Amino acid sequence: MSRKRVRYIWIPLIIVLIAIPAGFFYVDWSKGGSGAGLYSRKWVPEAVFAYWNPDDFYRSVDSVMGEFEGEQCISCHEAVTPGIVKDWRASRHSRPGDGKDTVYCSACHGNNHQELHLPTPEVCGGCHSTQHAQFVDEKRFGFPSHALAMERALDAEHFVDKPKAEVTACLNCHSVASKCDSCHTRHRFNAAEARRPEACITCHSGPPHPDDETYFASAHGQLYLAEGERWDWSKPLRKGNYKAPTCAYCHMDQGRHQVADKSMWKFGIKQINPLTSGNEVKRKQWVALCSDCHEEDWSRQQLAGLDAERRQAWSKLYAAEGILKQLRADGLLYPAAGERPPYPNDWLDSIRPRARIGFFEGQASAFYNVSPIERDYFEMWYFDNLGAYKGAAHGDAGFVLRGHEAMDQALVAIEAAAAKLRRLGEMEKKAQARRPDPAALWLSGEYTEFNRERN
Amino acid sequence: MSRKRVRYIWIPLIIVLIAIPAGFFYVDWSKGGSGAGLYSRKWVPEAVFAYWNPDDFYRSVDSVMGEFEGEQCISCHEAVTPGIVKDWRASRHSRPGDGKDTVYCSACHGNNHQELHLPTPEVCGGCHSTQHAQFVDEKRFGFPSHALAMERALDAEHFVDKPKAEVTACLNCHSVASKCDSCHTRHRFNAAEARRPEACITCHSGPPHPDDETYFASAHGQLYLAEGERWDWSKPLRKGNYKAPTCAYCHMDQGRHQVADKSMWKFGIKQINPLTSGNEVKRKQWVALCSDCHEEDWSRQQLAGLDAERRQAWSKLYAAEGILKQLRADGLLYPAAGERPPYPNDWLDSIRPRARIGFFEGQASAFYNVSPIERDYFEMWYFDNLGAYKGAAHGDAGFVLRGHEAMDQALVAIEAAAAKLRRLGEMEKKAQARRPDPAALWLSGEYTEFNRERN
Amino acid sequence: MSRKRVRYIWIPLIIVLIAIPAGFFYVDWSKGGSGAGLYSRKWVPEAVFAYWNPDDFYRSVDSVMGEFEGEQCISCHEAVTPGIVKDWRASRHSRPGDGKDTVYCSACHGNNHQELHLPTPEVCGGCHSTQHAQFVDEKRFGFPSHALAMERALDAEHFVDKPKAEVTACLNCHSVASKCDSCHTRHRFNAAEARRPEACITCHSGPPHPDDETYFASAHGQLYLAEGERWDWSKPLRKGNYKAPTCAYCHMDQGRHQVADKSMWKFGIKQINPLTSGNEVKRKQWVALCSDCHEEDWSRQQLAGLDAERRQAWSKLYAAEGILKQLRADGLLYPAAGERPPYPNDWLDSIRPRARIGFFEGQASAFYNVSPIERDYFEMWYFDNLGAYKGAAHGDAGFVLRGHEAMDQALVAIEAAAAKLRRLGEMEKKAQARRPDPAALWLSGEYTEFNRERN
Repeated sequence: MSRKRVRYIWIPLIIVLIAIPAGFFYVDWSKGGSGAGLYSRKWVPEAVFAYWNPDDFYRSVDSVMGEFEGEQCISCHEAVTPGIVKDWRASRHSRPGDGKDTVYCSACHGNNHQELHLPTPEVCGGCHSTQHAQFVDEKRFGFPSHALAMERALDAEHFVDKPKAEVTACLNCHSVASKCDSCHTRHRFNAAEARRPEACITCHSGPPHPDDETYFASAHGQLYLAEGERWDWSKPLRKGNYKAPTCAYCHMDQGRHQVADKSMWKFGIKQINPLTSGNEVKRKQWVALCSDCHEEDWSRQQLAGLDAERRQAWSKLYAAEGILKQLRADGLLYPAAGERPPYPNDWLDSIRPRARIGFFEGQASAFYNVSPIERDYFEMWYFDNLGAYKGAAHGDAGFVLRGHEAMDQALVAIEAAAAKLRRLGEMEKKAQARRPDPAALWLSGEYTEFNRERN
Repeated sequence: MSRKRVRYIWIPLIIVLIAIPAGFFYVDWSKGGSGAGLYSRKWVPEAVFAYWNPDDFYRSVDSVMGEFEGEQCISCHEAVTPGIVKDWRASRHSRPGDGKDTVYCSACHGNNHQELHLPTPEVCGGCHSTQHAQFVDEKRFGFPSHALAMERALDAEHFVDKPKAEVTACLNCHSVASKCDSCHTRHRFNAAEARRPEACITCHSGPPHPDDETYFASAHGQLYLAEGERWDWSKPLRKGNYKAPTCAYCHMDQGRHQVADKSMWKFGIKQINPLTSGNEVKRKQWVALCSDCHEEDWSRQQLAGLDAERRQAWSKLYAAEGILKQLRADGLLYPAAGERPPYPNDWLDSIRPRARIGFFEGQASAFYNVSPIERDYFEMWYFDNLGAYKGAAHGDAGFVLRGHEAMDQALVAIEAAAAKLRRLGEMEKKAQARRPDPAALWLSGEYTEFNRERN
Repeated sequence: MSRKRVRYIWIPLIIVLIAIPAGFFYVDWSKGGSGAGLYSRKWVPEAVFAYWNPDDFYRSVDSVMGEFEGEQCISCHEAVTPGIVKDWRASRHSRPGDGKDTVYCSACHGNNHQELHLPTPEVCGGCHSTQHAQFVDEKRFGFPSHALAMERALDAEHFVDKPKAEVTACLNCHSVASKCDSCHTRHRFNAAEARRPEACITCHSGPPHPDDETYFASAHGQLYLAEGERWDWSKPLRKGNYKAPTCAYCHMDQGRHQVADKSMWKFGIKQINPLTSGNEVKRKQWVALCSDCHEEDWSRQQLAGLDAERRQAWSKLYAAEGILKQLRADGLLYPAAGERPPYPNDWLDSIRPRARIGFFEGQASAFYNVSPIERDYFEMWYFDNLGAYKGAAHGDAGFVLRGHEAMDQALVAIEAAAAKLRRLGEMEKKAQARRPDPAALWLSGEYTEFNRERN
């Protein structure tokens, strides 16, 4: 090696020496700002976020001064907010028995009234360590997950892109990662309550996760509705204790605070192979669980039915995806990428605009800032398909039917819209008309522009 | 002043002398006809209207002759309709106590069986004067209002325009102004029943007022569903008596028979300024109410969250409205006003056709007799937007999300439809093609024509 | 008659002698295959069909060997599936009283554990002969019918055409013809349960039969929700026993196992004359039933209101149908029949393609393999219209309103789509452009092609 060449070794070394501290500085800097998460510097929280993500945003009220403890809190709140005191009195916190200490307000909220906090899972985990450990353990199974729900929201580009007023609704449910009272309503916190489906339904309803709709319409749900009021909810979720299962019976069997270990389908929005060796283990767990009440063969056939439903759904989705990709290749999407506003926080998109089609191309599969045919595909994929999946998984034939009906309809609409775009393109060529510049319509004065101003 | 000019003073005087009696005569005449309300001469009621608006339309059955009172009514109806007699026996009407007289059937329905009547609020108000006074008092707050609900229906042009078979469904709920058993089911009429949400839900459900959907999906509603069966409903709606609020707890606090004094948002279909001095008073009332259970700061932030959600919704609605108004200005709506049938009862519309866009241009913001792009805006405004509002107001994140999702989708569709109308217009100009006369499709043989024949 | 002509008489005779055995052979052959029903040779069942149509497809599991009876079954299943044993112990089967024999597992499932069967209605009818006779008797009223539900599915061309993974959801509910536990949940089978609406709702919900939605939103349903928990469900469904009716109270009055004798409207999807002499008899039955609680006049006016709603709905549907038929006549449907794939099992359709429009033209009124304007009509007819009907029939004003709103919207969309097809047609003529061959989009690589491969 010549001495000349050795001399140049300093160049990369200098780059490294500059780059590493710069990187550290950048990461540190990007964590600043008044938001939270990966893009915290790019957005400002609404005040109400304090209650959905207290760890990052809660600031104690300072209306009352002083330090209080135990019965002092109670005696005042008995008058101010008697309902929650009643609930606490009905809880085991107020009468723990076994010689344990009473758990007063201050144990969870602190005793300086000007520095109160809302209890995070860690606070609850101080006593309920088994449950907390199970809850946190869920992270290793990846998304979707309760324990990762807040990160899922805050670290998503489309969360940052959209006005904060709108994504408030997202945090409302994703707050399940940040506090235990999403499922255990304050301040009674009894397990009996959490065994019932209502504990889950506040979040698990509506088009993005119609667990509400599909469970209650199933034979399981109808039995619960007709008879559940007379079941003994103090019993643990075990074989023989309940005539029909609730959410927790199947997804948190034996009361484990972890719902991810038997999951495989990713809400139906990503095609998976249900027969990998890993999934075969999960299938056995499901069959064992269903067999608490049903024949084993029945259980296996239900799973096979779900497999078949999924294959069928994906055959439709891929048919639609193919049409869209062909349009993109032929330059017939209208407005095309580049003719519509870039995603505000995606600088690459403003340089090299891309139409994103299908799960793997990102930006939450392009559910906004798109042409209508792409949006139709989004609705087909995210709502119709996901609904069909939930129906099949929960035993609600109605949602399966409706989901597939709606996918059929969407496919017809997408085929037709594609044909129309082709007819228009053909005629414009013939008539030598230029297609009108969509910029006036799409690039200013609307939704995304608005985002840029306010988020 | 010349004598000539003075002579002419008789002309306006004569006009006035003719016009005033003519006006009186016209108003008197227009109240005739077999309908009711402002346009009573223009429509004929369906027979079933008798039960939704008994004051105007009920005619007693004459199947039974004679006059009956007290136990006589009971002894016969015990056999004919035993269920309602059972309900009456379970009511305080049958055992009023305190030395009061029993309230028999005849007290409310009359005792001549050929001239029975259905009790109106005035009849109930004979004894329940406080409640009736509160109910009637609501009128001073304007629409929307229970006490004005029947007028809201009957005095609306689009009510008169549409076939009576169709608007029967409207009266079904708007009858809340005409009778008390919309909320207090006959013949038990116990307050405990009216404290539960089901008393309201018969009407307050479905796309035009998804109070059902948004309340039950909220944490409040889920608590009610899980535990409400075991609450003591004989207790008044006061702080500390219930673990979660029902409709009446918040909207009729302390049991007041009036829901309008804290309302400000007009169902979300009209943009309002939430921070006028008047509304600041209402906000304080809301915060005080929420603070029965929640922190004051929490309550204020919830209201602020609702404000922000509304601003966001209106930014989308105005974006859509702008597109439509530009199309109208450019003569590109298809069919345009004048190419579609005029509103049957709007003679001005048949002389000077107008496309109505947005809340303030009337005819219930044009939800029929419109081109599809206008209809899309109607759906966006009246259902998606209203649903998002109700979700935000009732604490149901799912409806907020879905509403905004749907508005995003609608905006994409409207932008695209506008672009398509422009592309077609451009090409027709280029190709010197005339756009086909829509008259054949739109002006005959369909819905509105049908209206003209039958309403 | 000449001898020559007599000689020819042998020709038809020979044809008959060949044709009759050939016909017998064909029918016998077509019943083969692994499917069931008219087209059994054309499809292969999914494994899960065994549980929806056990008579045709169930094969016993052979995991356990030996013959068992009575307490033997119980003692083992007490450990394996304790829940169902508990249910059985709570049933009258386990304690029939009156000196009757206990009905053990083996009575219904057989006692050879390798040749178990699932009990069909015939098995239950062995003891419950009255109910079974009533159930079977329903067949004489034609479709729709519980007793014919399985045939309705299996013998329909569109069932055979579609992938079996998809129509699994259909069988789930149509299985009501094949087993009694669709309504009486195993293994308690108490009548009290079947009197409640939940017994019906597992199937009767969702867009094709929103009985769930319309009943629960009605005043009847709201009363049930608010108070039903405290009613005495051991009482028979008779006048005076219940404050509000449930499904069974009206449709299976007096507990008769037959729901067809008062039906007339065919789910609202076919226009019927409600005033034929036959229907007048049914109307009297309805009025008599409603008069258990309501005034006779009230009941009659409700029926008249339903008549009027139906007329109104059909005026809209026929307006839409007319537009579609005119487009078909003018060759403007795009893609037209012949430009899209034929129905896989309809050979006639592949020779002489037809666009099917409206109830009487078949293939379930063309809900797939259609152009979007036809699909819009299908949705309008099958979901919006049917929903409005169910709302009117069950006293849910919300569904009537929403159904008619949606029909208005669909009519606007159909009118507009028709106008657009005409504008495009006009311009293509002018510009001498050929409309693009839809074959690439519609005839390959998609849904129907997929069907052909896999069903």
